[in-house]
Amino acid sequence: MIPEHIKQFVDAFARLPSIGPRQAARLGYYLANQGTSAIQDVVDAVASLHHLTPCQRCFRVSHIADKKQNLCDICSHPGRNQKIVAIVEKETDLLSLEHTKKFNGRYLLLGEISRDGILTSAQKLRLNHLKSFVKNELGQAEEIILALAPTTYGDMDSSLIMDELKNSAIVITRLGRGLPTGGDIEFADDETLGSALEQRR
Amino acid sequence: MIPEHIKQFVDAFARLPSIGPRQAARLGYYLANQGTSAIQDVVDAVASLHHLTPCQRCFRVSHIADKKQNLCDICSHPGRNQKIVAIVEKETDLLSLEHTKKFNGRYLLLGEISRDGILTSAQKLRLNHLKSFVKNELGQAEEIILALAPTTYGDMDSSLIMDELKNSAIVITRLGRGLPTGGDIEFADDETLGSALEQRR
Repeated sequence: MIPEHIKQFVDAFARLPSIGPRQAARLGYYLANQGTSAIQDVVDAVASLHHLTPCQRCFRVSHIADKKQNLCDICSHPGRNQKIVAIVEKETDLLSLEHTKKFNGRYLLLGEISRDGILTSAQKLRLNHLKSFVKNELGQAEEIILALAPTTYGDMDSSLIMDELKNSAIVITRLGRGLPTGGDIEFADDETLGSALEQRR
Repeated sequence: MIPEHIKQFVDAFARLPSIGPRQAARLGYYLANQGTSAIQDVVDAVASLHHLTPCQRCFRVSHIADKKQNLCDICSHPGRNQKIVAIVEKETDLLSLEHTKKFNGRYLLLGEISRDGILTSAQKLRLNHLKSFVKNELGQAEEIILALAPTTYGDMDSSLIMDELKNSAIVITRLGRGLPTGGDIEFADDETLGSALEQRR
C-alpha cells in the first residue's frame, strides 16, 4: 500500500529530531505531489550541507572564512575578544546569544548534551582542545561562560566542565537564573522563583 | 553569521507544511553535524521521490503496479470494487481508511482542500476524470463516499462535489459525525454532540 520510496523517505526523516513517522509520511507525500522541481530544490538544499565544515577553533559547522587556519567568521574576526569564551551546546544556541548583541567573545560548541550526566569523549576532546588553545595562546582566559541549558543535565555537565577547566580561566561563570522577562510570578516554578530571590539585584 | 548553505536549507524546508524556520535551522545544523553519510541518506531519500508517479485513475502518487494502464496497486487490484469510490483529500487520509480494513472500494485523491471554499481547477479536472470514468465504464457508480475532513472548508467542498457528481452515483454519502470513540461527553463541543444526537442509532 505504502510505496517503497515513501517508506525510504519516512525511514530517513523519522530519524531526525522532532520529526515523527506521521509527519515524515505527510512530508513525503506532500513533496511527491509537488513534483520534480520542488523535490529537486529539497535535494539540492540537503546536498548543500556537504559544503559545511566544522571550524577548527569553535567546532561549529560553518562556511570557513579564514581558509589558512580553517576558522569560521567569528573565530577569525579581529574585533572579537578571543579571551572570553562561551561554551554552548549547539549552533542555534550560539545564534540566539549573537542575537542579543551583548557578547563579543568567541564560542566553543560542545555538541548535544547527553542524557546520562557525563561528558562524551567527543565533548572531552573539544574541551581539551580549548584547554591547550588557552594554555598556548593566552596563558589563561579572562572568562569562560557556561551557556548550557538550565536543565538537570545541562547543570550536571556545567559542573563537570567547571571542574575540567578550573585552571584555564580567571573566572568561570554561568548564565543568570531568574524570572524570564514578561513572565508571571504567580506561575513561576519554585526553582525559578528561588533563583530569582537568590540572584536579586 | 548563518552560513549560506544553512540559509538555503532553511528556505527549502520552511516552505514544507508544519516546519517553521526555527525547526528547519535545527534540522540543518543537526544534519550538518551528523556528517557526510547521514546527509547523503537524506539526499537519497528525497531524491527517491522522483520515482513516484500519480496513478492514472485515483491520482495518488505511488509505485505503478499495472504498467500498461499506469494504475496503482489499489486501482489495479481485482478484488476491489471499482463501483464504490471514496473521495479523500490526501494519501495519508487514504492510508487511515485502509487501516480500518472496512472499505473495499477504490479512491479518488482530491488534493489539498483550499481555504476559500471553492474547488481548484486541478480538483475539477480530477472530478471530471471520475465522472467520465463512471459514465464510460459503469454507467453509474454504486456509491461515492465523501471522506473529507469534518471542517468548515471540508464541508463546503463536500457540498460542491455532491452537486458536481449528483448524476454519477446511485448514492452519495459522507462519513458519519458523532462522538469519537474514547471521547468525553462533558468535553464534546456543541457541533459534535449535536451531530451525535441527530445520528443516534
